[in-house]
Amino acid sequence: MANNLLKGKRGIVFGALNDKSIAWKVAERAVEEGATITLSNTPIAVRMGTTNELAEKLHAEVIPADATSVEDLENVFKRSQEVLGGKIDFVLHSIGMSPNVRKKRTYDDLDYNFLNTTLDISAISFHKMIQVAKKQDAIAEYGSIVALSYVAAQRTFYGYNDMADAKALLESIARSFGYIYGREKNVRINTISQSPTLTTAGTGVKGMDKLYDFANRMSPLGNASADECADYCIVMFSDLTRKVTMQNLYHDGGFSSIGMSLRAMNTYQKGLDEYKDENGNIIYG
Amino acid sequence: MANNLLKGKRGIVFGALNDKSIAWKVAERAVEEGATITLSNTPIAVRMGTTNELAEKLHAEVIPADATSVEDLENVFKRSQEVLGGKIDFVLHSIGMSPNVRKKRTYDDLDYNFLNTTLDISAISFHKMIQVAKKQDAIAEYGSIVALSYVAAQRTFYGYNDMADAKALLESIARSFGYIYGREKNVRINTISQSPTLTTAGTGVKGMDKLYDFANRMSPLGNASADECADYCIVMFSDLTRKVTMQNLYHDGGFSSIGMSLRAMNTYQKGLDEYKDENGNIIYG
Amino acid sequence: MANNLLKGKRGIVFGALNDKSIAWKVAERAVEEGATITLSNTPIAVRMGTTNELAEKLHAEVIPADATSVEDLENVFKRSQEVLGGKIDFVLHSIGMSPNVRKKRTYDDLDYNFLNTTLDISAISFHKMIQVAKKQDAIAEYGSIVALSYVAAQRTFYGYNDMADAKALLESIARSFGYIYGREKNVRINTISQSPTLTTAGTGVKGMDKLYDFANRMSPLGNASADECADYCIVMFSDLTRKVTMQNLYHDGGFSSIGMSLRAMNTYQKGLDEYKDENGNIIYG
Amino acid sequence: MANNLLKGKRGIVFGALNDKSIAWKVAERAVEEGATITLSNTPIAVRMGTTNELAEKLHAEVIPADATSVEDLENVFKRSQEVLGGKIDFVLHSIGMSPNVRKKRTYDDLDYNFLNTTLDISAISFHKMIQVAKKQDAIAEYGSIVALSYVAAQRTFYGYNDMADAKALLESIARSFGYIYGREKNVRINTISQSPTLTTAGTGVKGMDKLYDFANRMSPLGNASADECADYCIVMFSDLTRKVTMQNLYHDGGFSSIGMSLRAMNTYQKGLDEYKDENGNIIYG
Repeated sequence: MANNLLKGKRGIVFGALNDKSIAWKVAERAVEEGATITLSNTPIAVRMGTTNELAEKLHAEVIPADATSVEDLENVFKRSQEVLGGKIDFVLHSIGMSPNVRKKRTYDDLDYNFLNTTLDISAISFHKMIQVAKKQDAIAEYGSIVALSYVAAQRTFYGYNDMADAKALLESIARSFGYIYGREKNVRINTISQSPTLTTAGTGVKGMDKLYDFANRMSPLGNASADECADYCIVMFSDLTRKVTMQNLYHDGGFSSIGMSLRAMNTYQKGLDEYKDENGNIIYG
Repeated sequence: MANNLLKGKRGIVFGALNDKSIAWKVAERAVEEGATITLSNTPIAVRMGTTNELAEKLHAEVIPADATSVEDLENVFKRSQEVLGGKIDFVLHSIGMSPNVRKKRTYDDLDYNFLNTTLDISAISFHKMIQVAKKQDAIAEYGSIVALSYVAAQRTFYGYNDMADAKALLESIARSFGYIYGREKNVRINTISQSPTLTTAGTGVKGMDKLYDFANRMSPLGNASADECADYCIVMFSDLTRKVTMQNLYHDGGFSSIGMSLRAMNTYQKGLDEYKDENGNIIYG
Repeated sequence: MANNLLKGKRGIVFGALNDKSIAWKVAERAVEEGATITLSNTPIAVRMGTTNELAEKLHAEVIPADATSVEDLENVFKRSQEVLGGKIDFVLHSIGMSPNVRKKRTYDDLDYNFLNTTLDISAISFHKMIQVAKKQDAIAEYGSIVALSYVAAQRTFYGYNDMADAKALLESIARSFGYIYGREKNVRINTISQSPTLTTAGTGVKGMDKLYDFANRMSPLGNASADECADYCIVMFSDLTRKVTMQNLYHDGGFSSIGMSLRAMNTYQKGLDEYKDENGNIIYG
Repeated sequence: MANNLLKGKRGIVFGALNDKSIAWKVAERAVEEGATITLSNTPIAVRMGTTNELAEKLHAEVIPADATSVEDLENVFKRSQEVLGGKIDFVLHSIGMSPNVRKKRTYDDLDYNFLNTTLDISAISFHKMIQVAKKQDAIAEYGSIVALSYVAAQRTFYGYNDMADAKALLESIARSFGYIYGREKNVRINTISQSPTLTTAGTGVKGMDKLYDFANRMSPLGNASADECADYCIVMFSDLTRKVTMQNLYHDGGFSSIGMSLRAMNTYQKGLDEYKDENGNIIYG
């Protein structure tokens, strides 16, 4: 299905852990569309994961980096320009992690050092990435930068915890920096708010299977897959979306615009049945 | 619980059908807070309903009017100023009806004459009301106009049908006219987006009991009642909210900012159980 | 710059008046990307405008239709399927007109027959189009329907008048029908909220040149052109955006996410200078 | 204008620096409406500012606290309950500061330690405050917590810098914690998004006078004053808004819903005049 949408473009993809990762699919699709890319991930993820396998397949160099380290990021952008032979046309930020979630600290019992880490890894890393790139003048005129987000930035989902706040911060950074990088270099910055996705990261979230089902039944088109998300990223990296910036773009089968679908209600109703009295009226609890 | 918040103010309340109506509660509370008011409803609703009973209790005059008739509305504002002895300080628009819903025309089989009626009664009547008032210079400086809306204006709820479009139009009219009436007379215009409410109108909506339950379990504070909505209207009519305008104000126990609550998911999960295979995995349909 | 994004697809483009029209550019780009299309416009526009010239160039049939007439729309979809040899993959709705604006009726002096016409032409026509298509089962599975909108649906712009309400209604219809057509046929429905554009329609709006300038200086990437809008439409028609639905997509150089830019403020400040007292303080009026 | 809206209620007001502060006005109005309160501010602000003067006037105890210190906050809530004789009914968070702004670090040259401080003081302090309160079970059932925000959380204003990101984070925290505190104790948490206000903090922002003027001319009701904001806070603390939670409430004279007003455009146009060619056409730059 290649359309040469990224022919001759250079990109950096952060966060491709394994073949379920959205970033992995984006890397594959970007190359398929004619781009050359580098891959970056944390040193530990590079060692543990299968990033190198992807790198080999795509003839892409892996540049390990802790995305919270300005120094590491400087190296990624410097090295990528060397390897790829010019300024960078697109960047994907697919990075997020919450120690509070991992350690099962509830939202009313957050560890504030953990919270700092959540924000640093999942949101501030995006600012660092862009600031480093801009200082190096590493992004080509009309370049495109995308980060992956989730609708929890707008509405609360139980259990998503401080990741919701991190996503809200991430989306704000996209707007704030989108203004500056746009006016100076025509670089656009957007976030894609993706359906719950059964990646390794996603699967780790408590109750993810139920939430996945709920979102799927709410969305008229069903949940968007990682492959479909990769397609959307390609579109946002291409020259066909040059005037879209500072936006949070829902890629979710319609979920964000649904209050209640018939399909989800049919399931919900089954759960309700046992609350009914003998006349079929719901006993409100 | 009277606080004299509307002492000396004059108001018109449209849409008080019976003692379950939000408008009914607003009328009672407004008087309790020191206002004098008139009531308006369609001639048929006045005959069929219990508006006169309320009018007697509140010593308020009932002025029948078809809210889609400019002439009738002219009479309401003219007569209200006479009866109340001066310009009007606040107006409540609690009017909505869809013949498509009543006649069970689905959204992909709308009757377009019915649609025009839905929009005319539920949204354009709000414009007519305000335009008539402004032409008569009937609203006092710093007056407050409120219409009741629903979150279906932003997100689709199955079965809410063309009422969703009517509410979107209603909220747009509040913004558009809020700009003009604000800059010229400091009159503010807002909509209150209320929880599903078990009024006579609400109860008529198909599957309302299930939706009510879902909204109730999603909302951390539960659904807002008609009484609580009346309190919020009072606040919006009072002098304490003079700089709030062109807003859609959610009065919904938090529903609009919730993606999924634990309580709603517990019910949903019960409905899911029968979709599970022998290993407890959900069979995605 | 063709990428074969619409190879083998069939489309209908409503509203191509002349070579400044966004719809005109969309038609050209769609064909360039491999689609075959039909064009539709009002009979009078077809006679007065240059639609036939475009049709010749693109080897496309023109099917005149009043978009408020269900019968005419039935003919467009029927005939388009005959001419193009199968179900329709994409539809562009680029239609809008306000007699209130044309006749200089201000928003507090609307003619309600005119308002009905505004809503019917600019918004309800979109519903009719989709309902007709769905009844004929004329849209292919995974088809894509787009209407052009403007940010006035969310925020009031002086002089935009009842077109703001029409756009709000249009966007609501996209959501409401997007739910139904999505769940049944995987058809997606979105609106693109475009920068002010110097089309024939746009140029007619009072004070358009000033508004254009303001939007241009506010937007970090400047206003999006008609050509760029056509690119974005192509993307939304392509298979790369299959899970995007019920969205209003800003294509505006960032305008919608800007509160105040330095560039716009520099101009504004010049206008302020004459309000300053001898100490350089602004005299607030 | 007292209405006994807070009769018998106990509150804590954070951030009253001097008689221009919104928090100062809120403290005064709360007492006027029948509440008893404590005041809290940073130790240095308490020494430098005039908080003690206010405290004396209102017979309120001042409890100095660094709002980023969990320990200090624990003391504020513990001591406040002792002094006031029971659980707390309302809390105002009016705290914000950016060292990046102060040190004139632009948004593409942020100091990341400064950024952490901005977020910690301006946003995370709100989480700490609520978490501490909840652990002490210090807030009464149906209590109300409000933080002050700004529309820069949604749209970028040049020069507002990392405070925009802090406000986005703040508003997200209000939603996230609003869910939890709501479902467990019926406590509501909201943010009020206030007009630019000529407080000591506000006046420090670069170009504040111009922005103030722009907002004022855009808003149909003009900018909301600190006094008016205090009234709105009172309303949000009162029992009349018990079902409003997880909301960001614009208190801005309509600014947030305006795209362009005639009044602002008249000023902008004057600035444009010098860009015009001899035929009066704007030369787009």
